[in-house]
Amino acid sequence: MNETSRSDLSAFFDPKGVAVFGSLREIPGTAYWVVRNMLHFGFRGGIYPINPDPSKYPEVLGLKSYADISEVSEAVDLAVVITPPATVPEIVQKCAVRGVKATVVLSEGFAESGDEGVALQQQLTEIARTSGMRIMGPNTFGVVNSANGLATMPPWADNEKIEKGGIAVCGQTGSIGPHQIPMEDWAYPVSKMCDISNKCDVNEADVLNYLADDPDTKVVAMHLEDVRDGKEFMKAARRLASIKPLVVLKTGRSEAGARASASHTGSMVGTDRIYDTALRQAGAIRVNNWQELFEVPRTLLLQPLPAGNRFAVITITGGQGVAAADSASASGLSVARFSPETVSKLRALSPRLGGNPVDLGPAMSDSRTMSLPNPFAVFGETLSLVLADANVDCVTVVFACGKQTVPLFPTVVDMLSKSATGYSKTVNVFVYGTSLSATQEMSRQLQAVGLPAYIDLDLAIRSLGYAAYYSRVKAGLNGSRLLCV
Amino acid sequence: MNETSRSDLSAFFDPKGVAVFGSLREIPGTAYWVVRNMLHFGFRGGIYPINPDPSKYPEVLGLKSYADISEVSEAVDLAVVITPPATVPEIVQKCAVRGVKATVVLSEGFAESGDEGVALQQQLTEIARTSGMRIMGPNTFGVVNSANGLATMPPWADNEKIEKGGIAVCGQTGSIGPHQIPMEDWAYPVSKMCDISNKCDVNEADVLNYLADDPDTKVVAMHLEDVRDGKEFMKAARRLASIKPLVVLKTGRSEAGARASASHTGSMVGTDRIYDTALRQAGAIRVNNWQELFEVPRTLLLQPLPAGNRFAVITITGGQGVAAADSASASGLSVARFSPETVSKLRALSPRLGGNPVDLGPAMSDSRTMSLPNPFAVFGETLSLVLADANVDCVTVVFACGKQTVPLFPTVVDMLSKSATGYSKTVNVFVYGTSLSATQEMSRQLQAVGLPAYIDLDLAIRSLGYAAYYSRVKAGLNGSRLLCV
Repeated sequence: MNETSRSDLSAFFDPKGVAVFGSLREIPGTAYWVVRNMLHFGFRGGIYPINPDPSKYPEVLGLKSYADISEVSEAVDLAVVITPPATVPEIVQKCAVRGVKATVVLSEGFAESGDEGVALQQQLTEIARTSGMRIMGPNTFGVVNSANGLATMPPWADNEKIEKGGIAVCGQTGSIGPHQIPMEDWAYPVSKMCDISNKCDVNEADVLNYLADDPDTKVVAMHLEDVRDGKEFMKAARRLASIKPLVVLKTGRSEAGARASASHTGSMVGTDRIYDTALRQAGAIRVNNWQELFEVPRTLLLQPLPAGNRFAVITITGGQGVAAADSASASGLSVARFSPETVSKLRALSPRLGGNPVDLGPAMSDSRTMSLPNPFAVFGETLSLVLADANVDCVTVVFACGKQTVPLFPTVVDMLSKSATGYSKTVNVFVYGTSLSATQEMSRQLQAVGLPAYIDLDLAIRSLGYAAYYSRVKAGLNGSRLLCV
Repeated sequence: MNETSRSDLSAFFDPKGVAVFGSLREIPGTAYWVVRNMLHFGFRGGIYPINPDPSKYPEVLGLKSYADISEVSEAVDLAVVITPPATVPEIVQKCAVRGVKATVVLSEGFAESGDEGVALQQQLTEIARTSGMRIMGPNTFGVVNSANGLATMPPWADNEKIEKGGIAVCGQTGSIGPHQIPMEDWAYPVSKMCDISNKCDVNEADVLNYLADDPDTKVVAMHLEDVRDGKEFMKAARRLASIKPLVVLKTGRSEAGARASASHTGSMVGTDRIYDTALRQAGAIRVNNWQELFEVPRTLLLQPLPAGNRFAVITITGGQGVAAADSASASGLSVARFSPETVSKLRALSPRLGGNPVDLGPAMSDSRTMSLPNPFAVFGETLSLVLADANVDCVTVVFACGKQTVPLFPTVVDMLSKSATGYSKTVNVFVYGTSLSATQEMSRQLQAVGLPAYIDLDLAIRSLGYAAYYSRVKAGLNGSRLLCV
């Protein structure tokens, strides 16, 4: 089996049929619950619950159960296994024999838990190697595909739905799935998710190779605790980053974190600098925490990359403008100086305008701006003027809202959206105010028209900083100029 | 008037009567709205709307209006002025003559807006100097006192209430008031708020001197763009920090930010290092962004200061544990090594325990922990064991929740609260999960029993890092050992 076909993980994400091995008792954490979550998120492919004693639960949520995979006559591309660790290798071997293409092992109790577990995991690695069947995990929540509703996690996933979108989220932890993250409240636009966890077989390079070619995935957010094959990883990461943004949170950065991550493999002290260099050379965007891992991709997904790092901010309070300039400087952006033409056009709008940060506070009580059709129209006018300036590459709009302005949101969103259209520059919005539900609603409406919204000013601006960084990197990776970052 | 009495700002926060000057038209941004907000937040002292043409609005929200302050026979300690800038000095002068002790000038159009404004502001400074009446602003939202419902801002403040508590929030921007911040959703525990903005008279040193002695204020969060009198500031900051924590966000940190903040006073390039040194010497906790300004004080308010910087984390997923160790290292904390006694007690709870980060994930499916009274009881047991360890100074508990666990929250909160009691160590909680409303509800319940909750792991741990820093600094300021930070 050559490398490309080994990295074809499509059976994990687009299986014709799925066999689910484990207890069919109706409680979270069981195979029953895996089936429940698949149905809940709308997976309509074949699902075949498998348990040695099907007489106990002959039917699960309307689906016939089977004693053995050999009894299933339909196509089965994917197996999901959540049984006691000692029973896993035999089940997985049976799947390989049956011609299943991919298996997710959800069960815990492998390499993370001591010598016995290490030996069990080694058996899985061996089965994958000899059969060619790919195995994800063990100790994972498996996969999610928003396009077909496939979701293999066994805990209660109480998000009602997973929004289809261009961000793939993958990692080595259960904390990144729909059973842990408020994806629905965030309206988080997901293509695929997976947790490679113990990596008995499928590793980060496989995932990157697959996602690089996945048309549904526009941006990849990857959490890593370690890298198994540095050379393969570098090759895959570099290829992916030359096509689409790769955002990486590598934890175990500190000595203490590395110990926590890998005490059983010996000290990894001192390796973080190596990861740092490798990630930079691969063209990845290395971020610092969970918040950045999830939030930075939203600007990368929804907006064009900036041509440079010249930043402008449009705000309603001067205090936010000053803080924005600080954040910009700390994020590798420079605060743009507007062209004389822009300055004079801004001054024509209000004599208090012309500088960057653009502080609309005083201008909003100016008679000229007061004559505009609505109190927020000055935002739109200003945004268009600033985006038209050749000295500006990216803009954050600071917008305050509250419960009483909710009825105005559609007008404001439409106005911002129209004003931002046609410039091919990078725009995001910092939304804050007196009500979290109003802020959330405004964020959702902005995202729906392609404007990424943030509830943290610093994070909005850092996202632009990372986008500008990646814009330079990507040009280098694609040879249009020397890699110089 | 000596320095101490000049810094007595009690007339701003506890006035016997308040005169409000300006338009009585029923729209946000007017004197009408100032009156509305005062009534809305429950201020029950005398309120006297003043407008030259009271025949137009003889009554405002049930309150009689007056043509001139001389017509008010009751005591008036505080004046709030929101009239066109050119009219302000005369009104303020009248207030001084009348014996008003404090005036808040909400109007814009002073030093921030050009030469004419500078001259007008100078007149205010002169009135304050000659009369002894203190003036806050101009260009401010004024003051808030949660104890008596006083709130002088003119915009629509749609928070329903302001929670009484120990954090004073003050700054030089309108973005920090109840008309801009989701204080109610956060259940943010406030004592007093003020915006000194243009600082024609009342400055940061006055505020610090006042808050140092304010019994309702346990922690001060201060936003600064500049400092007017370095010597006075240092004296006041150092005195305050020797009594209670002083958290400072100094913006205008970058060259671009400084330009944005103070282009009219000439370049402040290069001064940030001076501020940094000064703040450190004063014993202030310098934070980096709005989020930290609001969130770091919550741990300082609700929890005892840690005796040292040795950190433990109790988590349900290993991935969060690794990230927590990274955050701790980046925040000046060391990841504690448990004593042999703690290790053996943890192992008795579950053989998979004993290390730090304490990963409860595997332990939660262990038969011994399964026999505990509820699935979360292992959190409480573990927390008590960890807090009892002499090698541990502070702990973050990582807790995942969702809509389906809301009914269990009171049990969990009670269990965590009881387990944390009696150790005099610093504990906070990182709460995450599938539903923002559930996360928010859990945070509120935790805060109600004195456990600060965060929705960002990194921020929770940074808050502990700042607390450990301040603990060292405070000991130095109070001479118990050499200041060595």
